Amino acid sequence: MARSETTQRVVVAAVGIPIAIGAVVAGGWVLAALLGILAALAALEFYRMAEQKSVSALRPLGATLAAAFVALAAGAPSLGPDGVGFALLVVVGFLLASITAIWDRGVEGQPILAVSTTITGAIYAGALLSFGLFLRHLPLNSGALHGTAIVLFPVVLTWASDTFAYFTGRRWGTRKLIPRVSPGKTVQGAAGAVIGTILVAVAYSFLLARFPTYRIGILEAALFGLLISVAAQVGDLVESLFKRDAGLKDSGALFPGHGGALDRLDSLLFTLPVAYLFFRFLIGSGVQGGLLS
Amino acid sequence: MARSETTQRVVVAAVGIPIAIGAVVAGGWVLAALLGILAALAALEFYRMAEQKSVSALRPLGATLAAAFVALAAGAPSLGPDGVGFALLVVVGFLLASITAIWDRGVEGQPILAVSTTITGAIYAGALLSFGLFLRHLPLNSGALHGTAIVLFPVVLTWASDTFAYFTGRRWGTRKLIPRVSPGKTVQGAAGAVIGTILVAVAYSFLLARFPTYRIGILEAALFGLLISVAAQVGDLVESLFKRDAGLKDSGALFPGHGGALDRLDSLLFTLPVAYLFFRFLIGSGVQGGLLS
Repeated sequence: MARSETTQRVVVAAVGIPIAIGAVVAGGWVLAALLGILAALAALEFYRMAEQKSVSALRPLGATLAAAFVALAAGAPSLGPDGVGFALLVVVGFLLASITAIWDRGVEGQPILAVSTTITGAIYAGALLSFGLFLRHLPLNSGALHGTAIVLFPVVLTWASDTFAYFTGRRWGTRKLIPRVSPGKTVQGAAGAVIGTILVAVAYSFLLARFPTYRIGILEAALFGLLISVAAQVGDLVESLFKRDAGLKDSGALFPGHGGALDRLDSLLFTLPVAYLFFRFLIGSGVQGGLLS
Repeated sequence: MARSETTQRVVVAAVGIPIAIGAVVAGGWVLAALLGILAALAALEFYRMAEQKSVSALRPLGATLAAAFVALAAGAPSLGPDGVGFALLVVVGFLLASITAIWDRGVEGQPILAVSTTITGAIYAGALLSFGLFLRHLPLNSGALHGTAIVLFPVVLTWASDTFAYFTGRRWGTRKLIPRVSPGKTVQGAAGAVIGTILVAVAYSFLLARFPTYRIGILEAALFGLLISVAAQVGDLVESLFKRDAGLKDSGALFPGHGGALDRLDSLLFTLPVAYLFFRFLIGSGVQGGLLS
């Protein structure tokens, strides 16, 4: 990597990370604005990949639909994905996409594949990302600091998982994990990521213990670390797979030196829903030592 | 049409219609079993269309997911598409499809298009059809007869719309509606369908007036007829578009003389969700003369 690119990376991170944390602390419509824009851009990047497969998705509709999932989440965040809204968005999205395919495209416009990529891109980039907002406003949380600490838990672990995978893989990596999808990944790197993430999760749980309502047991924290590391690695592999399918190196160039929105979000798109489910069902259901104890 | 094919059509209808009505009256898991099987078969037909576009969807997963939308609806039908289940199914479906794409297919398996068609087929055939069950068990309804009358309302109107379109189009049809998608359809047929469906809707509303809690005003019934006829015609066009894209005449051969499951369900996939929304929001929200008055 050229020095100027490294500088670019650092500058982008130095600007981007505080903005992201600020949006998480603010929550509500501020966080929704950030996530909604990212969702729309990530959907457009997915459609650019589909374009490489000679399929022209219904871009404006799909990007709007992706952002609409986030906006819906902001409209009633503490309701989570409950409520009729999520289902309606899926149904209305399908109806609008197929109607657009009839009137704008006709048979020559490859309607089966155009509608399929439009809907799936909006779900991938929008519906999955909206779980960040649901997590921030889980009814168990009270106050910006509480919700922020919960959202940053999977975010920190996702970053930890990537970092441990990279360094363990570089030091001990010999056996390839799944070379036809991602030639650089090794079994040792994947294992190192899981172990390292579990350790960071346990450490983070000590920090969470400062909030009396958020005491999370060591075993639960370890399980959470395991789940998040696996989800993060799978999310990374899925995006790699899509990029290789499309023959692209980066999903886009939104963040100079960091690639596109999907490149930055790939793991989070999988870890945020997993984290939501973990806190809602496993911890929220009254496990000993859990959030509600 | 050959005489033997006509006989086949009549026999299939004579067997199929009583089964369908019986399942609607029974509701719950009986109706879910019928709709779940149809959803899985319709999803497989969609995947067969995608196959004609050289995309091999993840068939067992997609068909299971389509049926799972219906099963979910049966699990808590009066909850409707509210509750976290619908969103979870979409998210988990996407995660499973992309993981399957990594391990089963790799880059050569066209993962972008395989995942996209898998998810979208399950939504088209499964999520949309599950609204039949939601409609049957709308909390406003009490008793099998009530719910049956409500479900049969859009079903009868969908059939009326098709029939009026056919006969008005044949008698007065001159101007093509959208020849590049469906060469046989005319503007006059579409208009005749809307007018005829409105009349049938008003007539059906008199029948509904026998149930004291279901008194629906003439204007509401007319609006419902308009909405259902438009939705039925659009649903028909969407499936025609997909079939022409795939170069197929019928979606399948499930019902001898009637084509495949999608051929039978094409309009209902659009009219059932529209009917659910109409009864839930327009009528349920306390419009004068509505269900709750």
